[in-house]
Order: sequence, then structure tokens, then C-alpha cells
Amino acid sequence: MTETNMGITIEQSGAFVETFTIEPKRPGILDGLSFAVKDLIDLAGYKTGCGNPHWRDTHPIAVANAVSVDQLLNAGARCAGKTVTDELAFSLNGENFFYGAPLNPRAPDRVTGGSSCGSASSVACGLVDFALGTDTGGSVRVPASNCGIFGMRPSYGVISVAGVNPLGPTFDTVGCFARDMDVLSRVGAVLLACEVPATVNVGTIHLLEDAFALCDPDEREALTSVVEPVRTAFPGTIKEMSLSDLGQAGASTELRKWYTTYSRVQWAEIWSCLGSWIEDTKPEFGPRTAVSFDHVRSFDRGEAIGAIRVREAYFRLLKRFLGPHDLICMPTAPSVAPLKGSLGIDRTLGDYYPRTLSLTAIAGIGRLPQITLPLADVNGVPIGLSLLAAQGMDAFLLAAAGMVVS
Amino acid sequence: MTETNMGITIEQSGAFVETFTIEPKRPGILDGLSFAVKDLIDLAGYKTGCGNPHWRDTHPIAVANAVSVDQLLNAGARCAGKTVTDELAFSLNGENFFYGAPLNPRAPDRVTGGSSCGSASSVACGLVDFALGTDTGGSVRVPASNCGIFGMRPSYGVISVAGVNPLGPTFDTVGCFARDMDVLSRVGAVLLACEVPATVNVGTIHLLEDAFALCDPDEREALTSVVEPVRTAFPGTIKEMSLSDLGQAGASTELRKWYTTYSRVQWAEIWSCLGSWIEDTKPEFGPRTAVSFDHVRSFDRGEAIGAIRVREAYFRLLKRFLGPHDLICMPTAPSVAPLKGSLGIDRTLGDYYPRTLSLTAIAGIGRLPQITLPLADVNGVPIGLSLLAAQGMDAFLLAAAGMVVS
Repeated sequence: MTETNMGITIEQSGAFVETFTIEPKRPGILDGLSFAVKDLIDLAGYKTGCGNPHWRDTHPIAVANAVSVDQLLNAGARCAGKTVTDELAFSLNGENFFYGAPLNPRAPDRVTGGSSCGSASSVACGLVDFALGTDTGGSVRVPASNCGIFGMRPSYGVISVAGVNPLGPTFDTVGCFARDMDVLSRVGAVLLACEVPATVNVGTIHLLEDAFALCDPDEREALTSVVEPVRTAFPGTIKEMSLSDLGQAGASTELRKWYTTYSRVQWAEIWSCLGSWIEDTKPEFGPRTAVSFDHVRSFDRGEAIGAIRVREAYFRLLKRFLGPHDLICMPTAPSVAPLKGSLGIDRTLGDYYPRTLSLTAIAGIGRLPQITLPLADVNGVPIGLSLLAAQGMDAFLLAAAGMVVS
Repeated sequence: MTETNMGITIEQSGAFVETFTIEPKRPGILDGLSFAVKDLIDLAGYKTGCGNPHWRDTHPIAVANAVSVDQLLNAGARCAGKTVTDELAFSLNGENFFYGAPLNPRAPDRVTGGSSCGSASSVACGLVDFALGTDTGGSVRVPASNCGIFGMRPSYGVISVAGVNPLGPTFDTVGCFARDMDVLSRVGAVLLACEVPATVNVGTIHLLEDAFALCDPDEREALTSVVEPVRTAFPGTIKEMSLSDLGQAGASTELRKWYTTYSRVQWAEIWSCLGSWIEDTKPEFGPRTAVSFDHVRSFDRGEAIGAIRVREAYFRLLKRFLGPHDLICMPTAPSVAPLKGSLGIDRTLGDYYPRTLSLTAIAGIGRLPQITLPLADVNGVPIGLSLLAAQGMDAFLLAAAGMVVS
């Protein structure tokens, strides 16, 4: 792996746990491209550390690549290393107590965001052409927005999660980062096993007013001004609406409820996936991670039952509402990347998590694909505008996103 | 747990690894019903053995119920115990080297089928009202067909798999068994978090001729004769077709190809999920399981890459073909339950696995829900007729199945 002309070294980036080269197995449409892999995703012959030394020490070496990694290596791409992740992927911060905070080259005093922090940094710093991350509640989309790069969360269940450590299985996805739509589109075509058309006809683009209203004022202004390229790419198709308007008698669909619904289901799933290991091995966690898992441990799982019903009701609502050639356009996050060290130790205090997850939960609950486009900034600090499509319309979404930025 | 009036004891059934009572947490629509849980699905305070003593000994006690179990306990149901599974769920046999072959009360000289063998047996023997299983490649549907009970595989990704040991994550589902459609429907409503209507209007019922043609002659005759109740429930809607007719120029969709496609993707996923534990701990397996994992270990993972492309192409084909109110009607399996001990040690020899998986792979690849109805028998040995619906149309399918048997 060599440095790119951005002049940032691997060491300066802090993005990698380990660098090495895994050569492609076959030539393909990713010939000549290098990629990095979040250290939550198996690479054969290496330990998957999941951002925590104790996890690393209590698990064997992976004997197989994750299926998604095999797809990339069989399409011509070369793997350049493993990247830092927030511990067990349960964070949007990008500041790992054990492995540090990877560099956000567009805003060095700010976090990259997480949990796919090293993957976002490795791409943003120009050290690889693209990177694999995972996205349960925003872990690809938020760091892509923060670092000013492209990021995709696919439709739920299309890209294999075999060989990826689970966090919340009904939301877990493998996503990817790139610096341009052409690379993102080619990587998406490989992982989704589909063809991406050059152009598509778009039905209605639903501009989510309540999502824009949730943003900080400068961010809202910056993002509103970059809706123009979307309007230009697909003239006459934009319609303003609010998710809260979809609610039926007595059943609120205000954005905050998407966050609480998502979190309750996710917390129950997290404890089912990770609780036994945590209670059995009593690992050392960084302070923030420890507090997060304390919340999950003491969570009343009965609350998840009603949340699953709301989740499926919202899912069906979105399914009925969003036509196969429609798009949703909304901010990826309500604010630019926080300053390093500014996020408190407890995710349930302050409004960073509730506000951010209110937006990212939409694709999670709806099982929808989402692409964040690095179109906006506030005083040079990036923030992403997102497009979402109906479940399974990933190739259509990649094509539409390509038309916006071309 | 008490015996039912079938007069079969818990010991005679061989269905359980362990019996106990977990009381419901709240009343609900499952009040008064008891259920059993496949020993691949976590129950808080118990070890999940996954059908292999070495797995049991190398994993901690589960600290949380699987999310699906919590859903049932919060709807009034009472858990009565853990049931035998084929080792790590990788088998359709129902003969566990360590824990024995649970009783198929309708055909005691024959297997229940697997991998959810104990769950199927516990319901068929009348020891519980319903049971949870998992279905990756047929592990609910095949034993339900073999034992003459109802079984459901849900749409992929709707019922949470948190707390369930993974096998092939792009196919893994949590399914359920019951002796009547009313119970299956209520359990389905709880797990799917949906309302099941009393009646539905059905579009076209596609009767899969090539699937019927795959059956043994007696089975074909028995299953063909019980299409009549489907025809009566939904008059004028049946249309004969073959999946092989869906193929486009140069791309075969003959049933055998659904099997090879499924198996290649599944094998790559299995090794990503279980290979590291197997190579690290070198567990003792039963002879059949050992041979199966030897195949998976030596499988050329490059073959999975093309298979993923075929899988997604078939998925899209089914999605375009199957309308939201359509059904597919086909045999659940090509033959009745095999005699105990008659299945060889190597799943790739003989035609039992290739033929059976050619049918069960359809729902797996299509991410479709499927219900097997115990309508037919050959000289008293049961075999199931299946209905499938479009992805996400689980409540519709439950209602339609109820109309067929009412």
C-alpha cells in the first residue's frame, strides 16, 4: 500500500489496525482498485478484533473471508488492511479507547464518526480506493457524511453478512465507502450481484421536511441549497412531505419515534448477540462502551416487544408509500462531525444520538437502501445529503445517485 | 409439562434435550399455549447446545432469550423445554449422533427429518401446542411434512434471528410448527408482529408442474389429489406452470439449478460462520456431520461468487413473476420421510438432498414465506402440500392457508 498524493501517511491517518496485501483471486470490474476492511469483518488468516483487545484475545483466527470480501477479491480488487472500528460496532463516535480516533482529513479537530471510522478515514485520506464497513444504525452513513465521502447502506438482507460479527441482526448490513460514485457503483454492483444502469427514470422524490427541520440551522441551510443538483437531475419530480404526515389515527410517526423504536429493538438484539460473551468474560471496555452496554444490560426487554410491532407497522407504511421508482431525499445527519472529545460518555444524555438516529433509523426500519452524497459543507466541514429508494431498488438508487453528481 | 391424550411420554418422544417451565411474562393471544424451543435458539439461563456436546461445552450460558422467544413469552405462551436439533442445524435427517432421533409418531420407523427434529416431534407427539424451529434450507418445512403437522418458514428477515446460532445468514429464518392452522396463525401473528385477516382474495395460484414431477410416483399422486381443497377454497385461480419456464435466453431455471445455487451460497456462508470454531476446537462430530463439514471445508469458495449472481437473478425473476396476492402451490418434499438409518453418510451421494433441496431452495432463494399443510399421505405416512406467497406477504399467506383447511 502506498500513500496517495494527498500526502497523508498510514500512520498519520490512524485508520488501520494492520496493513498487508491480499491479492485479487480473479480479474474483474474492480481491477486495479484497493480496499480496506472494517475489523468486524473476517479476513482469512487474521483475527477479527471488533475494536476490543479482549474480544480479539478470546476468539480464534478467522479461517475464511467474509463472503462480501470474497466477492471483492473475485472481482479484481486488492485488500490493503483492516481498519479501526468502534468497540463491537456499538457507537457513532469514531473514538476508540484502545485504538484511537482515525483522522478526519477534512476536519482534523473533529471525529470521523463511527462505527466504521477507520474505513471512512482510509478512503477520505486517499489511502485506498474504497472500503467495507457495516451499518446497523448509521455506521457507514454517518462517518461518510462527516468525512465528505460517498457511503452506501444496502437494502437489508441482500449483501451477505456471513463472517461479520452481529450487533442487531434485523438491522445489520455490509456497506461501502468511496470518493466517487463511479467506484461506489462498481463496488455496489459486485456486492449486490446486479447491473447498474447508466440512467433511470425517477418517479417522485419525496423531500422530507421534518428531517431537514431537525438539522442545526447552518446545516439545514447548507443542505437545502444542495437539493438543487437533485432537482436538476430529475426536473419536476420533487414533492415536499414529512414522515410525521404518514401517521394514521392515534399512531404518531414523528421522527423521534423512529429513534425510540429503532433503539428498543436494537438493544434487545444486541444483548441477545453479545450479552453472553460480555457476562462470561467480563472484558475491559472503554468508558463510553461500558456505559452503553450497561444500558443494554439493564434494558427492560419487554419494551422491545411493542417496538417490534411499531417497527413492522412503519415498515409497511413506507412500503405502501414509496413507489418502486421513487426516492426519498433527506439530510444524512442533523449536524456536521462533532469536535473530538465533545461527545459525552453516555449516549442517552444530550441530543446527538437521539437526533442522529432519528434520521438514520428510517432506512433501518424500512429495510431501505441509502446513499449519502458529499455535497454540502458548513464552513468547510462536510455534511452529506442522502437519497433512499424502495427495498431492493439498490441498482436503481446507485444509478440515480450517479446522475445527481455527474 | 404433562402428556397429552396421545399417550406418548416425553421420554418416548426423544424430542427434548431438557424440560422445564418458563412462565409467560404477560398475558396475550397465546394464553394457555405451551411451546418448545429448538436447542439452537437461546433461552436465558441455559446453555444453547446446538446439538453438539462440544459446542455446548465451549460456549457460555445464554444471558438473554432470543428475541423471538421473548415475543412468545410476552404474548401469554409458556415454554416447556429445549428440543433436539441436528448438529449445528446442518442436516435434514433428524438423527443426532449424540442425542438420538426424536420420534415421528405417524411413522415410528421413519425419521422426523431435521434439523428442527425435536421441535417437530414435540408438536407431532402432542407434548406442546407449538414449537420454534429454524429453517435455512428446509429445517422446519421438511420435518413438518414428514411428521404430518403444519410448519411455516417466514419471509426472510422479518422474524428476528438475534439469539439464534447462525448457519447461512442470507437464508436463516426462525419458523414454527403447530397441529392446526389456528395456533400457527396466532403464533405467526405474534412473531411477525402483524394482524392475520380472516379471509383474503387470492390472485393466481401457480401450480408448479416441475415440482410435482420431481416427486416419487405415489407421493405425486397423493399430493395431486389434495390440490382439490386449494381449488375449492379459491375457485378458478389455479394455473399450471413450471419454474423452468421462467428462464430467459441461455439462463436455465430448471429445479436442479435452484439446488446447486442454494448449496454453493450456503456452503460459503457456513464456513464463514462456523469454520473458525471448528478449526480452532476440533470438536467431535457424528459421522454424517463430520462428512458434511469436510465438504464445506474443501469447497472452492470462488464457486459461491457466481452462485450469488444466479441467486439474485432468480430472486428478481420470482419478484417480477409473483404478484402480491398470488400463491405458489407445490409439494413440500419429493418423498415421505426416509426410513431411519436409510440415509447414507454423505449428503452429496444419492438423490435425497439434491431432490429435496431443489424444492426447499425456492423459498430460500426467493426470500418467500412458505407454509406446509399436512394434507396428504402415502399408505398413512404423511407428506405436506405447500403454499408460498410473495416476500412480506406472510399474513396474507397465513390467512390463505387457513381458508384451505377450514
